[in-house]
Amino acid sequence: MTDSAGFALRRIGTLQTPWRTIAECPRNGRQFDPAPLCRVRVEPDYIPGLSSLAGFTHLILLYWLGQDAKPPQLVFTPPFDNQARGVFATRGPRRPNPIGLSVVSFEGFEAADCLKIRYLDCLDGTALLDIKPYLPTTDSEPGATMGWLDRHATRKDGG
Amino acid sequence: MTDSAGFALRRIGTLQTPWRTIAECPRNGRQFDPAPLCRVRVEPDYIPGLSSLAGFTHLILLYWLGQDAKPPQLVFTPPFDNQARGVFATRGPRRPNPIGLSVVSFEGFEAADCLKIRYLDCLDGTALLDIKPYLPTTDSEPGATMGWLDRHATRKDGG
Repeated sequence: MTDSAGFALRRIGTLQTPWRTIAECPRNGRQFDPAPLCRVRVEPDYIPGLSSLAGFTHLILLYWLGQDAKPPQLVFTPPFDNQARGVFATRGPRRPNPIGLSVVSFEGFEAADCLKIRYLDCLDGTALLDIKPYLPTTDSEPGATMGWLDRHATRKDGG
Repeated sequence: MTDSAGFALRRIGTLQTPWRTIAECPRNGRQFDPAPLCRVRVEPDYIPGLSSLAGFTHLILLYWLGQDAKPPQLVFTPPFDNQARGVFATRGPRRPNPIGLSVVSFEGFEAADCLKIRYLDCLDGTALLDIKPYLPTTDSEPGATMGWLDRHATRKDGG
């Protein structure tokens, strides 16, 4: 069932990362140590929405993964695995709704429209859809188990 | 800057919760103890994407908050606060892109198209956009600080 009509999205900003091709992107934003500084450049119209971000050490960013416009793949074999997996059990980009999510560290403002962050893993120029404050009270589950990913994932190589 | 053309979203399922009006919805999914059982009903076309979810104790759900179609509010005073806050420092629903996010506990399948979950806080009938596996290696930040929310939020009352 497709229902695009009521679901209008807009680019609210742009993610600036060191990676120009998919092949260069790390598997996740913690793979490199130290993680390189990245930037969120917010469109001027949305700057007022950034007030009160002081004091949050972490943010959740949502962004559009559809840049390379590949169709969704409901089942696929991840590059580091040998078995087909359902896309909803992966963080791969070819999803029915290609929305990427990263928990990033927030390291302050470089300018009124520019946030310094770390732990992104996406292409330079990626369209930003949302910024949310990270709330450990509801977002942190350190004891969660990771199913098929448990034998693959470490802090630096999460899949 | 609006760029809806390239951003086509589709409903991949429906969230079933006990709450029929915004007024009934809890402030967050952990406010009620015990948290009521909720369900994710996935559209038939997307069922193959659910394979390999066994063994994940937690999932991230993305869903469309635009049901009541209120325009975005970049700055507003949250109901439990006395000061105006930028929307990107809140989890409120009136966002430029009204995508809701919940970290939920996954309690198994009730049917091939139906997942049992807890910790949702949204309206019954909400359109599901994505299911992602929760990865504590990259998603859990138990020591994160919460800025202006630090004096409001507890596990059951996160804002």
